[in-house]
Amino acid sequence: MPLKQKYPRVVIAGAGFGGLNVAKTLIDSPFEVLLIDKTNHHLFQPLLYQVAAAALSPAEIAAPIRTIFRGVRNVQVEMDEAISVNPSQKILTLKSLGEISFDYLVLAPGSRHSYFGHSEWGADAPGLKTLDDALHIREKVLTSFEHAEHLRRKTETAKYLTFIVVGGGPTGVEIAGALAEIGKNTMLPDFPILKQSDIAIFLVEAGDRILSAFPPQLSEHARLSLESLGVRVMCNATVQDVKSDCVEIKRKSGATEQIATATIIWAAGNNASPLLQTFKAELDDNGRVLVRSDCSLPDHPDIFVIGDAANFKGSNGNPLPGLCPVAIQQGRYVGSVIKKRLSPENRKPFKYFDKGTMATIGRAKAVAVSAGISFTGFLAWFLWAFVHIYFLISFRNRLRVMVEWIWYYITFQPGARLIIQRMQRQSETR
Amino acid sequence: MPLKQKYPRVVIAGAGFGGLNVAKTLIDSPFEVLLIDKTNHHLFQPLLYQVAAAALSPAEIAAPIRTIFRGVRNVQVEMDEAISVNPSQKILTLKSLGEISFDYLVLAPGSRHSYFGHSEWGADAPGLKTLDDALHIREKVLTSFEHAEHLRRKTETAKYLTFIVVGGGPTGVEIAGALAEIGKNTMLPDFPILKQSDIAIFLVEAGDRILSAFPPQLSEHARLSLESLGVRVMCNATVQDVKSDCVEIKRKSGATEQIATATIIWAAGNNASPLLQTFKAELDDNGRVLVRSDCSLPDHPDIFVIGDAANFKGSNGNPLPGLCPVAIQQGRYVGSVIKKRLSPENRKPFKYFDKGTMATIGRAKAVAVSAGISFTGFLAWFLWAFVHIYFLISFRNRLRVMVEWIWYYITFQPGARLIIQRMQRQSETR
Repeated sequence: MPLKQKYPRVVIAGAGFGGLNVAKTLIDSPFEVLLIDKTNHHLFQPLLYQVAAAALSPAEIAAPIRTIFRGVRNVQVEMDEAISVNPSQKILTLKSLGEISFDYLVLAPGSRHSYFGHSEWGADAPGLKTLDDALHIREKVLTSFEHAEHLRRKTETAKYLTFIVVGGGPTGVEIAGALAEIGKNTMLPDFPILKQSDIAIFLVEAGDRILSAFPPQLSEHARLSLESLGVRVMCNATVQDVKSDCVEIKRKSGATEQIATATIIWAAGNNASPLLQTFKAELDDNGRVLVRSDCSLPDHPDIFVIGDAANFKGSNGNPLPGLCPVAIQQGRYVGSVIKKRLSPENRKPFKYFDKGTMATIGRAKAVAVSAGISFTGFLAWFLWAFVHIYFLISFRNRLRVMVEWIWYYITFQPGARLIIQRMQRQSETR
Repeated sequence: MPLKQKYPRVVIAGAGFGGLNVAKTLIDSPFEVLLIDKTNHHLFQPLLYQVAAAALSPAEIAAPIRTIFRGVRNVQVEMDEAISVNPSQKILTLKSLGEISFDYLVLAPGSRHSYFGHSEWGADAPGLKTLDDALHIREKVLTSFEHAEHLRRKTETAKYLTFIVVGGGPTGVEIAGALAEIGKNTMLPDFPILKQSDIAIFLVEAGDRILSAFPPQLSEHARLSLESLGVRVMCNATVQDVKSDCVEIKRKSGATEQIATATIIWAAGNNASPLLQTFKAELDDNGRVLVRSDCSLPDHPDIFVIGDAANFKGSNGNPLPGLCPVAIQQGRYVGSVIKKRLSPENRKPFKYFDKGTMATIGRAKAVAVSAGISFTGFLAWFLWAFVHIYFLISFRNRLRVMVEWIWYYITFQPGARLIIQRMQRQSETR
């Protein structure tokens, strides 16, 4: 890509929370910034599960990247896919634009869900990382109710009203809680033939408690809240096999059981982007790059890896969790390191400031821990709602989501219960 | 479908404006109403082009049918597809529920766009009837700008910035106007490399004027408004061939020209649903059933055909146009005929009351004719906006669309500019 180059070029791969904040930090600085993403939008992933649960529309949690940087002269946005990195020659190769040279490179490609070596499960147990994932799950869930209502008069309907959520982290807990509420408060009134007792939602967690990143008493609180919504929480349970119409679960005891289901949602385990395997770097078991205290690659101080893609040892010696605040803070840190053109020896190590973590379990139910203080119930939920609306990227979306939530809070009618049949097209958009 | 039947059963195929209004008219009447639709939502088609133009989100112009009839005891909603009718035995066959007997049948299946015998054009020149169509066009348009901006530095970009709209009726005019505005006011500021002069939008009309259903001076006004937005209006021009990267157009003079384009939108010609070919009835050239003055089938006074699917001779001897008001009025008429159990000889003929027609050309630009009076410009646009918001099916959507329009009017930033790559899935939702 021949560009007449006046200033050093910073190439950023990925416009998630990490990459976006690197670019924002470099606005109007004497650098030529190229921000690359596979999609044309920045996605507010913490609310993605609400799109899957038909509560929000895609446009309410996503904003076009170009619009975020509209009028910014030194940031150029490209919709393209980074496919390989050559650190020594300082070249990043893009799918359609080809080779791009860089002075600084920030890799923030994020991660995909991992099926622990069973990638074939992906078709039947979609994960939740992209808007496409969320719409796919939404259609599976809504269509299941239609099927169940049809079959009611014919044969077995249980399969369609059984929803399996795999993984007891925040995402799994949030989607399970949301499904329980939507099912009870929204779908049942529209399907008079179906009864509450027909709906079964399982949350399957391999560890001995859900929300393991939270203090035990909050895990316990979350479990009780979920069960009060009718979710069956199975801990010490691992998925042995996934088929199109059932899942096989193995208990710690060794006992295995099969559960018939038409909807399996995968919220367990992540694998960092394959992009990180295209150059020589030490990776951990999740495919994350082991980075130095300044988020840079060993031997390559001008190449940084941040967010989900990085294994950054936190103060407790464990890698920092794959949370937005980590990515945001790393993005800002790397942005300022580049802006100040700090040589490696002058870079203060990155420090993650943990403002706290939270997970919502449903309407007016949540758990949060901040500065060692635990919150539960309405207060935690209010905190959660406030923080999430506050951090939505555009003012317009803040407005929209707030309106949707207030509306839902009053009417129990979520906003986006559409089944949009996707016609198989000869020529897709790209 | 064995249902213990207490009241006469009214089966309605299609929950568009026609079918929906039949069902609404029969709420709480001594009839067992079964409302069937392929999708789970009622679609407000007059605004579908705004979804295609990335101005609105699908959920803003659609509402779940079940929710519309929530709590209504005598109306049952089924998501299913009617595949054939047996008038003499009074049986409707559904794709998944199988055979259903009826006492009254209302066929309101609508229409698909017709390619005048060239169905192979469909893949490259999508029409605009469903949310899936609209999202497909939205992705084509948005992706084209990304391609153009990439190629700018390499080769020919014109193809990606040339948009062909085929058909000069209201839909064609509205989509062409919307594309021109979105291109100029929204996309260009986000693509600094592209210039206004790079964008070319053609509106191709076979007749000698666009909006032929309107008075000539309004057609002229619409043409001038479109051209002021940069749309090139080609009348007396027919499409000879459609390929993935170009369209061949033949002028009345006989001259033909090829235009390179990546985006062709088909807004010409309709074909009524194939369902109408599954029983013996006289059809017109567009596959519409010739109905009697009470919208019923000759020889079958208990079977009605309404909306796009019906050829109903209007006062001027021509078939009524395929507009929402016609479908709505026919739906209410048939509903009350059934409700009153009128025998054929006691049914007053259906009369269409033409409140007027309107088409919008862009922000604050529209044409309208009502009671012989023509409106143009802001007044017509305001009328248009008011009428469309007023008739949106749910209060929530009225609110949402109003907010979106006010926002867009002020900021020129439409609401749904997302390219959502659709992953090819092994198992689709149905």
